[in-house]
Amino acid sequence: MRKPPTLLSLTIDIALLNLSHISDLSFLPDHVLLELFLRTLRAGKLTEKILKLFVATGKDEILSLISELNIQLILTPVLPTINIRDDEVDIVIGALHLDLTSFMEDWRAVFSRFHLIIVQDPDLKGDLKIPGGFSFDVYTKSDIESVVGSSSSSVVFSGYSCRYFGYLVSHKKYIISIDDDCIPAKDDKGELIDAVAQHITNLMTPATPFFFNTLYDPFRKGTDFVRGYPFSLRSGVQCGLSCGLWLNLADYDAPTQALKPGQRNSRFVDAVLTVPARAMLPVSGINIGFDRELVGPAMVPAFRLVKEGKFRWETVEDIWSGMCVKVICDHLGYGVKSGLPYVWRNDRGNAVESLKKEWEGVKLMEEVVPFFQSMRLSQGAVTAEDCVIEMAAAVKERLEPLDPVFARASEAMVEWVKLWKVVTSRLSDSAA
Amino acid sequence: MRKPPTLLSLTIDIALLNLSHISDLSFLPDHVLLELFLRTLRAGKLTEKILKLFVATGKDEILSLISELNIQLILTPVLPTINIRDDEVDIVIGALHLDLTSFMEDWRAVFSRFHLIIVQDPDLKGDLKIPGGFSFDVYTKSDIESVVGSSSSSVVFSGYSCRYFGYLVSHKKYIISIDDDCIPAKDDKGELIDAVAQHITNLMTPATPFFFNTLYDPFRKGTDFVRGYPFSLRSGVQCGLSCGLWLNLADYDAPTQALKPGQRNSRFVDAVLTVPARAMLPVSGINIGFDRELVGPAMVPAFRLVKEGKFRWETVEDIWSGMCVKVICDHLGYGVKSGLPYVWRNDRGNAVESLKKEWEGVKLMEEVVPFFQSMRLSQGAVTAEDCVIEMAAAVKERLEPLDPVFARASEAMVEWVKLWKVVTSRLSDSAA
Repeated sequence: MRKPPTLLSLTIDIALLNLSHISDLSFLPDHVLLELFLRTLRAGKLTEKILKLFVATGKDEILSLISELNIQLILTPVLPTINIRDDEVDIVIGALHLDLTSFMEDWRAVFSRFHLIIVQDPDLKGDLKIPGGFSFDVYTKSDIESVVGSSSSSVVFSGYSCRYFGYLVSHKKYIISIDDDCIPAKDDKGELIDAVAQHITNLMTPATPFFFNTLYDPFRKGTDFVRGYPFSLRSGVQCGLSCGLWLNLADYDAPTQALKPGQRNSRFVDAVLTVPARAMLPVSGINIGFDRELVGPAMVPAFRLVKEGKFRWETVEDIWSGMCVKVICDHLGYGVKSGLPYVWRNDRGNAVESLKKEWEGVKLMEEVVPFFQSMRLSQGAVTAEDCVIEMAAAVKERLEPLDPVFARASEAMVEWVKLWKVVTSRLSDSAA
Repeated sequence: MRKPPTLLSLTIDIALLNLSHISDLSFLPDHVLLELFLRTLRAGKLTEKILKLFVATGKDEILSLISELNIQLILTPVLPTINIRDDEVDIVIGALHLDLTSFMEDWRAVFSRFHLIIVQDPDLKGDLKIPGGFSFDVYTKSDIESVVGSSSSSVVFSGYSCRYFGYLVSHKKYIISIDDDCIPAKDDKGELIDAVAQHITNLMTPATPFFFNTLYDPFRKGTDFVRGYPFSLRSGVQCGLSCGLWLNLADYDAPTQALKPGQRNSRFVDAVLTVPARAMLPVSGINIGFDRELVGPAMVPAFRLVKEGKFRWETVEDIWSGMCVKVICDHLGYGVKSGLPYVWRNDRGNAVESLKKEWEGVKLMEEVVPFFQSMRLSQGAVTAEDCVIEMAAAVKERLEPLDPVFARASEAMVEWVKLWKVVTSRLSDSAA
């Protein structure tokens, strides 16, 4: 039988929940204070404000603990004015492995203050293993079926695409999504990178798609717009999508990976830039953040290879949805950024094996890229939903004759927008 | 314990060693052939002869691999083998100060193997002081007059524009030009940067303007094209212009400089990227390299402010000619790169004083940028000269009514192309 909690323990639980409303801790007995501090740490609730509260007690035990653990007050937030509200962010994780323990522990310092949406790959049998101390919801095959129905649908949420279900059911403004084979990277000074804070900074500061700034992100501390940059363009536009990068194993396709199995990306490029309007890029879903309100409906799992597998280099769903988002941002006047933050990608898989199936994606890209490059949306398309529907029609007309895979992509885009509208209206009904 | 190698693997190892003695591979089973091909690639042993051997097997898998990887018989070796021929490069220095001693000494290790063209600002009275040990030609006011005539011309070579005279009289393939208030910078490891070698590398390796590579320059050691990048675009195009950057004092306009007098650029961003087609950028003439044969005639000193001064932030000639080059590169299918190399810019001047005159440039940029963004050249324009003449006509038609400064810019563009043709034909006559 479990031992019932002590009164002290319950009191500390409640204190922990209300810590942000407490302005003085110095009246607490030393052992209670110490216990509260340790629990605060474990719960991942040690903010700058709360640390100051503990420091203000002046208690030796606390101060030496802080010093031993090398906890430092200067948690420089990337941009001083960016204020991430926890309730505006969902972190969406597609679980392709049952045991998420080491993944979640590695990310604890970064993830624990946010709500997580964990979507289990419906092909993955068994129960997920998730460590304590996180706020999360798990969605499994039956949850997915209860929303999209179990009948065969053109929108498929298996493999890497399971995360798209998380994009659908979230009702937050910002989504951050990171592959479950990535861990936090370190910057060129050896400091751990807070990928979520960087994505949010990228999304909350303006983008500059209409003129290229040679010194990269002009809104970053220590930099600015270069001589010759028109003042009328300096206020920038809203950012729809933030594409992060990868140290160690970069995001290559199977042929490149097979050709250069020993190649590792070790160069930390300390920059974020806006990809200019009308330039297409290969968006990777490994490490991204986006503004769900602006571009969520364009994050569509539409382009599924016949032999799509469970390695990144066997998929193209993210390349497709990335180009959908880019075309929409160019049309509606939003920006797409690329660069920081980096994550560390661990090695896995044998690319030579993948070569047997991945050629399909490589070949289709030769049709896909010119299609999106030349795609122009009508003035009537004023929301991301409108834009996706228009693009789906163009896919049907121009790409479907080339390969049957495009027929399903077009269908999936239409169905995805329907799903998006249904789920969003349900969410707003339940909120009302 | 390590697993012992298979017999097949050992056989392939031996085949790899003896590949140059084998004259027929067509008897090999497909999977062995594929493995042997990949190992050959990885071992860096794919010579022209061996490639032909694999092609001769006629096996589909091999042929499609060769095609997808865009392996071509003439495989121009990319980075490590970049061989700068000293006789293909002129370093052009516009001398705005009489005493070049410390400037030249700081650059000695980088400059001394190349020929220098030093053009003395015709407004600068006196004799230049240049240390020994360099190969150089100096051009003064009288040299300029002997070429362009002393009568009033719309092409003016005073101030920062004196370097354009060097572009005109050079007959080398590549030009590197660096302002005389810059010294070599150090990279993030404290190593001195060879700005000339980096510019030449940028110019000699392909540019990729038609699709954005998120890992920056794919031709750099340790990196590649990202998943989703079309193979048909991976061979890239010729690079016309390489725009370097600045540590310490960045290239801001007078208002920004006056507003943030203490701002210094200390971030070394270890990247070179191709600025996508149709995206305009503010090219700075402080630290550039270009392919004179491809874009030389577009490097025109056409846009001269009425109150142009002797500080960078009082000029816009480079912004104008940079946009001319970018439009031409987009039209003719060349690339423009931005990023490395950095130079260290020393502080000088009082930006607040400059504010009295520099507003003119800032205001005009609001007309200039949309003009170049919407500029489309005709199919008949097939050389840089043709393109500049077409642009001059468009400047006359669309910009001249807005401000008289544009009338002179248009005239200067036409006259510059005339000068370019005269000087070039004289040079080729004397060479014949």
